[in-house]
Amino acid sequence: MAAVSPLAPERFPEMPAIDGVAVATAAAGIRYAGRTDVLLALLEPGTAVAGVFTKSKCPSAPVDWCRGKLKGGKARALVVNSGNANAFTGKTGVAAVKLTADIASKSAGCKPAEIFLASTGVIGEPLPAEKFSGVMDDLVAAVQPGRWEEAARAIMTTDTFPKGAAAVVRIDGKPVTICGIAKGAGMIAPDMATMLSFVFTDAPLAPAVLQSLLTKGVDDTFNAVTIDGDTSTSDTLLAFATGAAAKRGVAKISRASDPRLEPFRKGFNRVLANLAEQVARDGEGARKLVEVIVQGAATKKAARKIAMSIANSPLVKTAIAGEDANWGRVVMAVGKAGEKADRDKLSIWFGGVRVAHKGARDPGYDEAKVSALMKRPEIELKVDLGLGKGRDRVLTCDLTKEYVAINGDYRS
Amino acid sequence: MAAVSPLAPERFPEMPAIDGVAVATAAAGIRYAGRTDVLLALLEPGTAVAGVFTKSKCPSAPVDWCRGKLKGGKARALVVNSGNANAFTGKTGVAAVKLTADIASKSAGCKPAEIFLASTGVIGEPLPAEKFSGVMDDLVAAVQPGRWEEAARAIMTTDTFPKGAAAVVRIDGKPVTICGIAKGAGMIAPDMATMLSFVFTDAPLAPAVLQSLLTKGVDDTFNAVTIDGDTSTSDTLLAFATGAAAKRGVAKISRASDPRLEPFRKGFNRVLANLAEQVARDGEGARKLVEVIVQGAATKKAARKIAMSIANSPLVKTAIAGEDANWGRVVMAVGKAGEKADRDKLSIWFGGVRVAHKGARDPGYDEAKVSALMKRPEIELKVDLGLGKGRDRVLTCDLTKEYVAINGDYRS
Repeated sequence: MAAVSPLAPERFPEMPAIDGVAVATAAAGIRYAGRTDVLLALLEPGTAVAGVFTKSKCPSAPVDWCRGKLKGGKARALVVNSGNANAFTGKTGVAAVKLTADIASKSAGCKPAEIFLASTGVIGEPLPAEKFSGVMDDLVAAVQPGRWEEAARAIMTTDTFPKGAAAVVRIDGKPVTICGIAKGAGMIAPDMATMLSFVFTDAPLAPAVLQSLLTKGVDDTFNAVTIDGDTSTSDTLLAFATGAAAKRGVAKISRASDPRLEPFRKGFNRVLANLAEQVARDGEGARKLVEVIVQGAATKKAARKIAMSIANSPLVKTAIAGEDANWGRVVMAVGKAGEKADRDKLSIWFGGVRVAHKGARDPGYDEAKVSALMKRPEIELKVDLGLGKGRDRVLTCDLTKEYVAINGDYRS
Repeated sequence: MAAVSPLAPERFPEMPAIDGVAVATAAAGIRYAGRTDVLLALLEPGTAVAGVFTKSKCPSAPVDWCRGKLKGGKARALVVNSGNANAFTGKTGVAAVKLTADIASKSAGCKPAEIFLASTGVIGEPLPAEKFSGVMDDLVAAVQPGRWEEAARAIMTTDTFPKGAAAVVRIDGKPVTICGIAKGAGMIAPDMATMLSFVFTDAPLAPAVLQSLLTKGVDDTFNAVTIDGDTSTSDTLLAFATGAAAKRGVAKISRASDPRLEPFRKGFNRVLANLAEQVARDGEGARKLVEVIVQGAATKKAARKIAMSIANSPLVKTAIAGEDANWGRVVMAVGKAGEKADRDKLSIWFGGVRVAHKGARDPGYDEAKVSALMKRPEIELKVDLGLGKGRDRVLTCDLTKEYVAINGDYRS
């Protein structure tokens, strides 16, 4: 077992229960011994669901299942297992997904199409879905509200800490709650890992409103985090809105343009951003959290592309692991992004200290000061292209020998 | 000094002299102590030149210079230095390029516009071009034909072995010679390294013919090699044709469509392919040479994109370093390439053994046999998408802890 990431939060946050959501976990023995590996979340009737998924052209069977079932807009249960991703498992995988939904729907008393699924772990091995039948009735009997940390632990693969975040906001002057859990990104030994996240709220939102919030919300949060540039076949982010706050007098929101949605949107995005940052803090072998800010680009889209080019560059990431403010490699990564850039207008900062300016080393730059900043666990790397007003930021971590050890050493 | 790559050829190849090319090297003290760091190649009057360069939007000053001077189509000398890339050096860099060309043109007795330049090494430091004036007259006096290994050594940065390749082909029944040298790819400590290559021939080719050969030739050779997906600001490949074979009765070739060019094209491409493979064999920290073959894709272009996605995936590369035939990560890399792919039609081979077939683990696959194959220094990884006839191959190397050490440890 790997040591907890040095970038982990001190503790799992305080997270309130959400009316209409109850969870339980079990050890079904999918792959791991001595730990939980199944999460069941029961959702009260009428719960709206929305989702975003991996852009992989070879998605896992559960991703295909969820995409298909989203059309209904309603969910009654979420079943997540760790240890086996049910990815690249062909017809067996499709059958395993169906069997899981059947088992869960019987135990929960709903339709299979109202069951949402996610799997993370080994790829290419058949998922022994029949094992769920041994635990599902007990899970349904055991569900309780508010057991978020337990839920976050059951979905971990080689994450080094459980990830959760919560926010309470007001709609119509009445409090509504948002709680989310996530598991790590980076593709993790002994096979692939995956980014999974599940966000729950008691706000009364129509499925289309929830989908709009989610689609827009991920752009600057989960989609702005990269560990190694690799993309899982299984990445899944589902959001569930039970609507239970309606009982306390919050009127239903049916349009994404409703101004009553704004405080909720902020809280929802804060939860997504918090979870996404925790994912970056638990990148494989990570010793430093790196915020890459690109400004002065032609457009926000260009800024994102350049920021991703920097954040995914093995040379930038190894330099940061070596605590070296190597702006030459940043120039390289800007240059290879393929977006408009003018060497003679480029400025680069590490930790707020400008090290390069207008096409050359900044003559005023204090190397000792920057060296001290580079020893910190959190590094801000800023680039100004000097061309326009496009700005963006992404989060990543450094590339250490531990990353290679985690991903390459397990056969020895 | 790093140990020589275990993938290095046994020795530098036998390479003949080329009529009209003479080389010399010197230690100008640009950065390194106790080794040569300047190469001069003098070319006889009338030598045709062609070039291809980095696609970086922030190219180095010498790249800008060469691009500008290519229009003339003629070269009299090539000056290459190692130790300083003259990249991201602003106006100082432009002045240094001009000074170098002035110094060389005075010593060589030609116009500055006939001098071609390349620099590799540290980025962001002013190039002390005045140092060339102390060695240039001696270099001009010392040039000799055929000193290819000496030339290849002078342009190394942290390459672990000098790289050269040669071919003799016939045009009009008469032998013509092609000799090339190269230095390593990957961006190397303590700053950036670069792919540089220079190819010489005595064939009488018009500049446009040489450019056409080069532009087409790099596509399946140098452009099909990747170490870490990073792109130098300085990558430069120049080809020079002295035309001296005309004295032996080889008539000049003025059109790229001339059928007399075909045997030459094959030899030229063989030299490029050989040099490109040596670059992959000297990837930073490389312990395995990996050939990624993608077939059954919709188009060749799609096959290239998928092959590059596999070859640049940190997870595939660390798995190979760990001698693990981890086809799940290959599926992941196929999926993230963004090209058409159907999980249920995908087959994957390691070392010729099929490990996955039609959406699942190949039931017949002998794990012991594949494990033995994965211990070899050369690994073939083949993917069949089962969709069309598009095929391509790229070369890469594994991602080892030594890569991270080379690129991240030098500050400690």
